[in-house]
Amino acid sequence: MNVYIACELNSLEKKIIKNNLKKHNLYFSKLKFKKKADKNFLKCEIVFGNIPSDWVKQSSKIKWIQLESTGFAEYSDVKKNLLNNDVIITNLKSFFARQVAQTVMAGIFSLYRGFDSFTLLKKRKKWIGDPIRAKLEILNNKNVIFFGKGSINKEILKYIKVFNCKYCFIDSSSKKNFFIKQLKQAEIVICALPGTSKTKMLFNEELINCLSQKSILINVGRGNLINEKYLIKKLKNNFIKGAILDVTAEEPIKINNPLWTCPNLILTQHTGGGYKNEMIDKINFFLDNFQKYLKNNKVLNKINHAKGY
Amino acid sequence: MNVYIACELNSLEKKIIKNNLKKHNLYFSKLKFKKKADKNFLKCEIVFGNIPSDWVKQSSKIKWIQLESTGFAEYSDVKKNLLNNDVIITNLKSFFARQVAQTVMAGIFSLYRGFDSFTLLKKRKKWIGDPIRAKLEILNNKNVIFFGKGSINKEILKYIKVFNCKYCFIDSSSKKNFFIKQLKQAEIVICALPGTSKTKMLFNEELINCLSQKSILINVGRGNLINEKYLIKKLKNNFIKGAILDVTAEEPIKINNPLWTCPNLILTQHTGGGYKNEMIDKINFFLDNFQKYLKNNKVLNKINHAKGY
Repeated sequence: MNVYIACELNSLEKKIIKNNLKKHNLYFSKLKFKKKADKNFLKCEIVFGNIPSDWVKQSSKIKWIQLESTGFAEYSDVKKNLLNNDVIITNLKSFFARQVAQTVMAGIFSLYRGFDSFTLLKKRKKWIGDPIRAKLEILNNKNVIFFGKGSINKEILKYIKVFNCKYCFIDSSSKKNFFIKQLKQAEIVICALPGTSKTKMLFNEELINCLSQKSILINVGRGNLINEKYLIKKLKNNFIKGAILDVTAEEPIKINNPLWTCPNLILTQHTGGGYKNEMIDKINFFLDNFQKYLKNNKVLNKINHAKGY
Repeated sequence: MNVYIACELNSLEKKIIKNNLKKHNLYFSKLKFKKKADKNFLKCEIVFGNIPSDWVKQSSKIKWIQLESTGFAEYSDVKKNLLNNDVIITNLKSFFARQVAQTVMAGIFSLYRGFDSFTLLKKRKKWIGDPIRAKLEILNNKNVIFFGKGSINKEILKYIKVFNCKYCFIDSSSKKNFFIKQLKQAEIVICALPGTSKTKMLFNEELINCLSQKSILINVGRGNLINEKYLIKKLKNNFIKGAILDVTAEEPIKINNPLWTCPNLILTQHTGGGYKNEMIDKINFFLDNFQKYLKNNKVLNKINHAKGY
């Protein structure tokens, strides 16, 4: 089998793939993606990694793409190759849940226990001590709203059960009246939503206005969910307690973006899903799925084009 | 009954005490403590707050002191008043457990998910993004050692159960061989120990040398537990992953203290026990204990002079 590998790998990671796929022809991409598909790619039936979606129509061979992300918005229309054969696309759904959930916990606790301030005070060698205590909070009994019923939010729920929080889940079937009412009482709003036409700019001025000085807004889904300009205004004027954004409209965030100087905001630079052994685990997932593919078993995490997630 | 109030209170807090103790004579301290006891204090049988321990021997009336702290080292020798009558001292044991435990969680997650770096990068308007991911970690399956079997560590254990960590508790009965062995495997070391002669400088060079590049050291007990100079050396050379100190040998930390510039170190300025409604809850604890005292019931949290905690 010809396999095209389009992930950024170190030598150890390449070795793991080579050792496990000795009987196959491996083509490691140079990762400089042009409009015209790489010749090596055009020889391959299988891809591991996020190649440009335009390439698929140029290939008469491609049958299966294992993405190395959960999101697949740019592949939504990719169903057939050049010869009109079906292309299977699998993603890494749920793969990032634990990491992202723990980035969310880090964010909540950082804001509640003053850690963003402590880091800056240390930089300035400035002791405040006792007067800070009155600004700190604990997670117990807080009102939490989860936007999205996916693996990330379910993981977070496991962690917060012990804190006796009240909570509810909002998904695409929830009525607007209902979640507006819930938002007004919320102390923690956690958004882990896929990028669809329904979620784009869902957090517009109206929804942001539902938040209060007690509320923390967290987004670990897609960067186009929130009217950032309006959120910044609210954070600057202390109308909202704080926000944690793993994803933003602009990535990388350019130097003149007002997000950098916005107070009470933590920016985690789209690293929420990351961790030390991430690539090794991705490779293992691909290798397991590869065995399933070879045996004509069902591959895991086949994307649902219609649902968009 | 004459009651001396030696806590720093705002007008609302004073009002709560006044409304609840209408039948009693209240003397609010000016909180400028001199060697010679305040005249008003000398009239009182009951104290709420941490008066100078020297004052007790000057009073013929004092019978009960409700401290507003967990620590009571400076009151260890205070057992009798001027007339050789027994003085009851109660502390706020367990009162700070939830807050401190959540400061510990904030610290662990901040280091594992890179939040200390993100705060500083935001200050510099610097995007790094993906390369940070490989440095991040998750809490699952980590090796945790708890030094101290008190309410703080028991609270933390509740929170981390869901992460499938291995853990053990070390207390005054633990053998040195045992905890040296455990320390060498530890990824998270949480110290919530009282200030006794046994815990002073317990983390000397020998114990610190047991820690590895995978280890995080956390101290939320007393500031004299750790050889800070040696810890700084280890952190600077990346021999230890990170540290979180809520308590330090010097408090407030002066501007020339090398802790301020030590990398991989989070300083929380002895705020671990704090939270928004802290004083109100302390007052409620005192008022409940006051009712017990009046009814000759056992007051809660009587300190054990012999044990020192």
